[in-house]
Amino acid sequence: MDDPITRMSHEQCWEFLRRHELGRMAYHLADEVHIVPINYAVDHDPVSGDHSLLFRTAEGSKLLGVVMNADVAFEVDEVDGEHATSVVLRGRGRRLEEDEEHRAENVPLHPWVATPKWNVVEIEVTEISGRAFDLSLPWQHMIPDAPQ
Amino acid sequence: MDDPITRMSHEQCWEFLRRHELGRMAYHLADEVHIVPINYAVDHDPVSGDHSLLFRTAEGSKLLGVVMNADVAFEVDEVDGEHATSVVLRGRGRRLEEDEEHRAENVPLHPWVATPKWNVVEIEVTEISGRAFDLSLPWQHMIPDAPQ
Repeated sequence: MDDPITRMSHEQCWEFLRRHELGRMAYHLADEVHIVPINYAVDHDPVSGDHSLLFRTAEGSKLLGVVMNADVAFEVDEVDGEHATSVVLRGRGRRLEEDEEHRAENVPLHPWVATPKWNVVEIEVTEISGRAFDLSLPWQHMIPDAPQ
Repeated sequence: MDDPITRMSHEQCWEFLRRHELGRMAYHLADEVHIVPINYAVDHDPVSGDHSLLFRTAEGSKLLGVVMNADVAFEVDEVDGEHATSVVLRGRGRRLEEDEEHRAENVPLHPWVATPKWNVVEIEVTEISGRAFDLSLPWQHMIPDAPQ
């Protein structure tokens, strides 16, 4: 049987992340794990060649969580007919200093919801992996009648 | 200005979770936070009235993580034109005992990828909240030409 899961290269992972804008960040808050949808953009340092993620946030639990414990994980996925793709990364979250915040102006970072968000957080990526899945959805035609 | 964020009732959150199949679980693995896409179903105890989530998994880091530390978070979202919805919950993950695994047969739990998954995990939900967002997407027409 063909393996229904294909591993993506790092380059494919970053290309996928650049094509999307919505992901979910998992972070620590004290001894709890939390998750939140995040509107992000990919930044790229032309000197080092490193990629990172940037997002804007108001003061709140996710900023507090990242400041207290920088360890975060992030996921972006896409389901398209019989294929799905998921990129997962882990890294360190860091609030940018005022003199770095201009970086958010140079990437396609478009907050989806019109609420004030004064802080820019960067996720410096330490691990990234992506998987492409062939889906087996034999029940799809049943969904209109699926039991609750 | 109208608030672009509307809070959902618990009933609306569960109705939303029942209409979807794909979420992302955040979990602890030692002192790290991890995130993984999960194909889930909602279960419902007719006696207590409690809802929970069920999913299947192979042996692996997410099962190990949940067994070592039951504290998990879970997110499901949907973006539809100018509206987005996100339901976030926190709870306790628990591998079902053999004599409980039949519960996975009684819910619309359809693994999307044809790989063996012998364990059933339940997330007992301790907190749930949902938000509906009015999106402000004035740049949408620019996306084909958006800078990298």
